[in-house]
Amino acid sequence: MNNFDGLLEKVKACATKKVAVAVAQDDAVLEAVMAAKERNIAEAILVGDADKIHEVAASINMDLSGFEVIDVKDNTEAALTAVKLVHDGKADMYMKGLIDTKGFLKSVLDKEVGLRTGKPLSHVALFEVAGYEKMFFLADVAFIPYPTLEDKVGIINNTVEVAHACGVACPKVAPLAAVEVVNPKMPATVEADALTKMNEEGQITGCIVDGPLSMDLAIDPEAARHKGATGRKIVGDADILLFPDIHAGNITYKTLVHTAKVKNGCILTGTKAPVILTSRSDSFETKVNSIALAAIVAEEMSK
Amino acid sequence: MNNFDGLLEKVKACATKKVAVAVAQDDAVLEAVMAAKERNIAEAILVGDADKIHEVAASINMDLSGFEVIDVKDNTEAALTAVKLVHDGKADMYMKGLIDTKGFLKSVLDKEVGLRTGKPLSHVALFEVAGYEKMFFLADVAFIPYPTLEDKVGIINNTVEVAHACGVACPKVAPLAAVEVVNPKMPATVEADALTKMNEEGQITGCIVDGPLSMDLAIDPEAARHKGATGRKIVGDADILLFPDIHAGNITYKTLVHTAKVKNGCILTGTKAPVILTSRSDSFETKVNSIALAAIVAEEMSK
Repeated sequence: MNNFDGLLEKVKACATKKVAVAVAQDDAVLEAVMAAKERNIAEAILVGDADKIHEVAASINMDLSGFEVIDVKDNTEAALTAVKLVHDGKADMYMKGLIDTKGFLKSVLDKEVGLRTGKPLSHVALFEVAGYEKMFFLADVAFIPYPTLEDKVGIINNTVEVAHACGVACPKVAPLAAVEVVNPKMPATVEADALTKMNEEGQITGCIVDGPLSMDLAIDPEAARHKGATGRKIVGDADILLFPDIHAGNITYKTLVHTAKVKNGCILTGTKAPVILTSRSDSFETKVNSIALAAIVAEEMSK
Repeated sequence: MNNFDGLLEKVKACATKKVAVAVAQDDAVLEAVMAAKERNIAEAILVGDADKIHEVAASINMDLSGFEVIDVKDNTEAALTAVKLVHDGKADMYMKGLIDTKGFLKSVLDKEVGLRTGKPLSHVALFEVAGYEKMFFLADVAFIPYPTLEDKVGIINNTVEVAHACGVACPKVAPLAAVEVVNPKMPATVEADALTKMNEEGQITGCIVDGPLSMDLAIDPEAARHKGATGRKIVGDADILLFPDIHAGNITYKTLVHTAKVKNGCILTGTKAPVILTSRSDSFETKVNSIALAAIVAEEMSK
């Protein structure tokens, strides 16, 4: 599986998954779950103000007959109702609707009905980039601002699980930096080296970690050969790109979306079930791809 | 001037500039200066081991008859000889050949014959990106690891000078971050806001600064409109992209080069004359574009 078409094929081969949507009266979110249903990616349970959900659905000519709608007018209550469906196993993944991120995350972290696992939460963005055979898993471009070394271990573990679910048996993890050598004046390079050692010592498993790496040595085999990197485990063939902090990650993420030819999808991980937290500015296809990515991960978690 | 073709036209209209090359016995550098000469971008003075320069030139079928060659066998001495040509006004810009970056920068900073100005040195990368009407000036993606607020003022001043030289009368400067709002837990956003205020107060001039900005709001007018940013001075129309640190800058730089359709060129600024410090992995066209960018800046400095 090295592109989104392959991922969608894989999803269709799984048992149908269900996404519970918190505060579902949002046109873009309804369009995405309708497309997900039509393409056999996932079913949806729509929790929110039923009148408004029907009103929004009518405005986009959406037929709600195939969807379960649960009427909860209050946003906080709607989110808790939706997340409880996932918590109780009645749905397989959890999606944000017309509720602010803070309120949505509060429901994700709710001690009684939420999706806490004790693991750190982190964001994974999956990219198909024109000209590249592999897909890239970017982490963390949206959730943890300045990850500590311990946070980075958690981010790697979460992202490796997603990669495994996507069929990458032993993903290559590149802790990125501006340079590919350890520089004591650049903490990101020191931590990248520590992560590499922890992987060699068996403290980080299920993957191969090799850093610090510059972006070109991580993703471009030709650049890696040209620079003559020897004795490295990653030579332009990274699967997972680990960013030093949220600024580097987010700016790179948006650079890819706005300047390269890409397809992408994102989920929040470290939770009992995958969480879909797309933003207003994400495209329709990105929202659908995110549901598909969540479904693949939910399938792996159900095994 | 909104692409490299325009920049090359502008260079041809200027008086011919001369580049002094330090340790010129490098095939890629000789190819670039030969192309620069053929395209009327710049002449070159080649300083280094003359035997080796002739040998390398022969290996790439390069005719040296139009070039002044100065025979200095020792690399350190060759660099000092070359930089002195620029220092003394016998050449207009200074270029790195087959010498390590450290040794090359030592010559740039030499107190007697170097190119110090008292201003901080910083790196400027100019990008033409397919699909965008404007060119983007990225700073600093290669020189200052973790710029302080004061460094950022210096980087902006240096980069604004380059933008002016390229015909952008009042460049829009976007101090980038993961988010577009000030967050006290994210120093990059606090500093971006401070830079904006300093610009409003007249401490940073010749440009419009507006930050913090996320990458999409900085470069993509459609994304900026979609997110409904109001009261901002930059709405997807930034010229200068200021990065929070070298990791964010360098990873973005390499992401652009390796995933988008771009043309680019880079120089080191803050010096008495523009310095060309391309790396081995830069393409031939990038090296030629860098000479052209340096020539435009040298022309402006000569006024």
